[in-house]
Amino acid sequence: MSDFKQRALDYHAFPTPGKIAIEITTEAETSEDLSLAYSPGVAEPCREIADNAENVYKYTGKGNTVAVISNGSAVLGLGNLGPMASKPVMEGKALLFKRFANIDSFDIEVTHETPEEFINTVASIADTFGGINLEDIKAPDCFIIEKALQERCNIPIFHDDQHGTAIVTAAAMLNALDIQDKDIAHVVIVCLGAGAAAIACMELLIQCGAKREKIYMLDTKGIVHSRRTDLNEYKTLFANNTDKRTLDDAIEEADVFVGVSGPNLLSTEQLVKMAERPIVFACSNPDPEIKPELAHSVRNDLIMATGRSDYPNQVNNVLCFPFIFRGALDVRAREINQEMKIAAVHAIRALAKEPVPESVLKASGESALTFSRDYIIPRPMDPRLCNKVAKAVAQAAVDSGVAILPMPDHYND
Amino acid sequence: MSDFKQRALDYHAFPTPGKIAIEITTEAETSEDLSLAYSPGVAEPCREIADNAENVYKYTGKGNTVAVISNGSAVLGLGNLGPMASKPVMEGKALLFKRFANIDSFDIEVTHETPEEFINTVASIADTFGGINLEDIKAPDCFIIEKALQERCNIPIFHDDQHGTAIVTAAAMLNALDIQDKDIAHVVIVCLGAGAAAIACMELLIQCGAKREKIYMLDTKGIVHSRRTDLNEYKTLFANNTDKRTLDDAIEEADVFVGVSGPNLLSTEQLVKMAERPIVFACSNPDPEIKPELAHSVRNDLIMATGRSDYPNQVNNVLCFPFIFRGALDVRAREINQEMKIAAVHAIRALAKEPVPESVLKASGESALTFSRDYIIPRPMDPRLCNKVAKAVAQAAVDSGVAILPMPDHYND
Repeated sequence: MSDFKQRALDYHAFPTPGKIAIEITTEAETSEDLSLAYSPGVAEPCREIADNAENVYKYTGKGNTVAVISNGSAVLGLGNLGPMASKPVMEGKALLFKRFANIDSFDIEVTHETPEEFINTVASIADTFGGINLEDIKAPDCFIIEKALQERCNIPIFHDDQHGTAIVTAAAMLNALDIQDKDIAHVVIVCLGAGAAAIACMELLIQCGAKREKIYMLDTKGIVHSRRTDLNEYKTLFANNTDKRTLDDAIEEADVFVGVSGPNLLSTEQLVKMAERPIVFACSNPDPEIKPELAHSVRNDLIMATGRSDYPNQVNNVLCFPFIFRGALDVRAREINQEMKIAAVHAIRALAKEPVPESVLKASGESALTFSRDYIIPRPMDPRLCNKVAKAVAQAAVDSGVAILPMPDHYND
Repeated sequence: MSDFKQRALDYHAFPTPGKIAIEITTEAETSEDLSLAYSPGVAEPCREIADNAENVYKYTGKGNTVAVISNGSAVLGLGNLGPMASKPVMEGKALLFKRFANIDSFDIEVTHETPEEFINTVASIADTFGGINLEDIKAPDCFIIEKALQERCNIPIFHDDQHGTAIVTAAAMLNALDIQDKDIAHVVIVCLGAGAAAIACMELLIQCGAKREKIYMLDTKGIVHSRRTDLNEYKTLFANNTDKRTLDDAIEEADVFVGVSGPNLLSTEQLVKMAERPIVFACSNPDPEIKPELAHSVRNDLIMATGRSDYPNQVNNVLCFPFIFRGALDVRAREINQEMKIAAVHAIRALAKEPVPESVLKASGESALTFSRDYIIPRPMDPRLCNKVAKAVAQAAVDSGVAILPMPDHYND
């Protein structure tokens, strides 16, 4: 067994199995304490909530609680491992929510047959939570599930594999385009992969100004084009009227490559055929579509990002999901709408352009970080993210009319 | 607003809304930590679980996690307040699980139309947990729901309002019968109330030796008897062939009164008609069926218990549910069967007969506690309960063949 594998298993097995536990936030030592926490005292908040449902936010943890819910149908890049084998990922996500945004989060793994059963189950338990983070659900089910749940629930439903990935990708991409001096409205984009993340990334780039007709999306059968009869409704939105059929065809003079596919699927031969000053986001994890050292060896005018922490420009969802929920919960947004997502894009993007304080450098283990082709996006451990991103998201929720509460004072600290 | 009400509301509102939160049990400071907690390290336990489902107990919190699940259809004595208004109770239960048995517990409130929908929802999410504590679900739905869920799930399903109440009542009752020198096989029992708790209490007393034909159960229409046509299948089991129709009829020469009904429903006139050396468990909360001071003023040969902490002999579920789950989880029992429940009865019962150490007296705020008519059951804060009850329950699970694991060593400490 590799040393890393052993350490990863030990990390999960000790000191106790798993990574999260419950802690009591009130005094619970004496009989008197317990008479307030449970019967008879607990009847008082129950009555208050029965009288006015809003009081559930005053007397329970609902407003700071996010469920991480999966069926394990698309676990990391490992495929359909089922609900049980997805549990370490879901507990990990809950850990990240707590670590980065002080959100109390726990995981629910759902066993079901049809998407309808999944939807019914989650809708039935949704009132428990302040928000729901869907995770590792295969496409196209994830699209159906997220849409149906947001229609049925009045709390935010957010499929992080789609929107978290898209937001961080878009933030990094807009900065990369700035540095490469390219206009998003004019760039040709090749998207290798046509799953949930790929589709969400392209949709958000379009929201940010990219042109649908300049995007070439590829699935395992090649380019998604208008003569194909095997496309689901989500891919069909990207079906161009084109004679191009392969990655080789598409990559010629392309400005941008976004890979959400698998390892080593972009060759140096293909990379050299891209337009000048190209942008390559090779986000397959852990092994990117092309290794950065290989890519840089054939193109010195390249900006490159990956999903890995050991190369510059890591596209990592943790830059987004804790804070988009923090902002949404802080103003009790009913949903996470397009305006809030785009606000998150711009907040993340802007932070990369700000001077990096010494404390952040230290936390990131870096001697210097300046906005440049090797620093187009903040580091995951940057403690400024929470306030910046959550505040922007909360403000967008207020401005777009989906917030129940006004902006909280603490954002002005 | 009364001082107690204000304190109860403040307890729930501060320092943060609610009573429980998530804590991280691993190191989660550095990038290295996070690479183990989440991608890429988290893939390792996922793979191990996909290869062998048992590994979910090794690498996740499942084995120490109990969901507290309700639909809010019978919240405390307050009636059908709905899922949201039940949340403080469910969070309180989670707090007690943590406080008394170090079980990580969180609440799920379910919104549904039919019992089938509730069952389907809970069965779909059950794999997430090591056990499920059902709470505050109205009868007779609770019987249907618990049975169906235990058939569909291979983890313990336990409706505490039924079985927790029954176990603690039975433990106290057996000790009261000892002191009053009465044989359970011969006593006449009047049970005022015919809901979930009442039926479960009587069923468990029958398991402990009471005779069904000597039990008079009363609902709001009077005695449950064999000529009534309005009884559900659960009450029907207690329908005696008798001419008695009222509490006045039933109480004449009865040895035992168990009240799980409402305040002040047993009069002193009725109490004086009971047999010599009577036993009265007036468990209506917060106001008992007869006040202890009133009862003692007309009968000096009485043993009395209530649900209140400010009188002797408090029948409190917290004496049982944390520890029955602790024992069940420790040997990974597939269910909580009759043998385990009866083991809990005898463990709780036996503890009341043991000398009470100074530390327990101090924790209970008592100067002396000796097995007697005013101390027939341990105090809720007695720290000996966890080991004693959990160990007995675990041993019963092993002996009755529902445990996956052998007895853990720590019970021998």
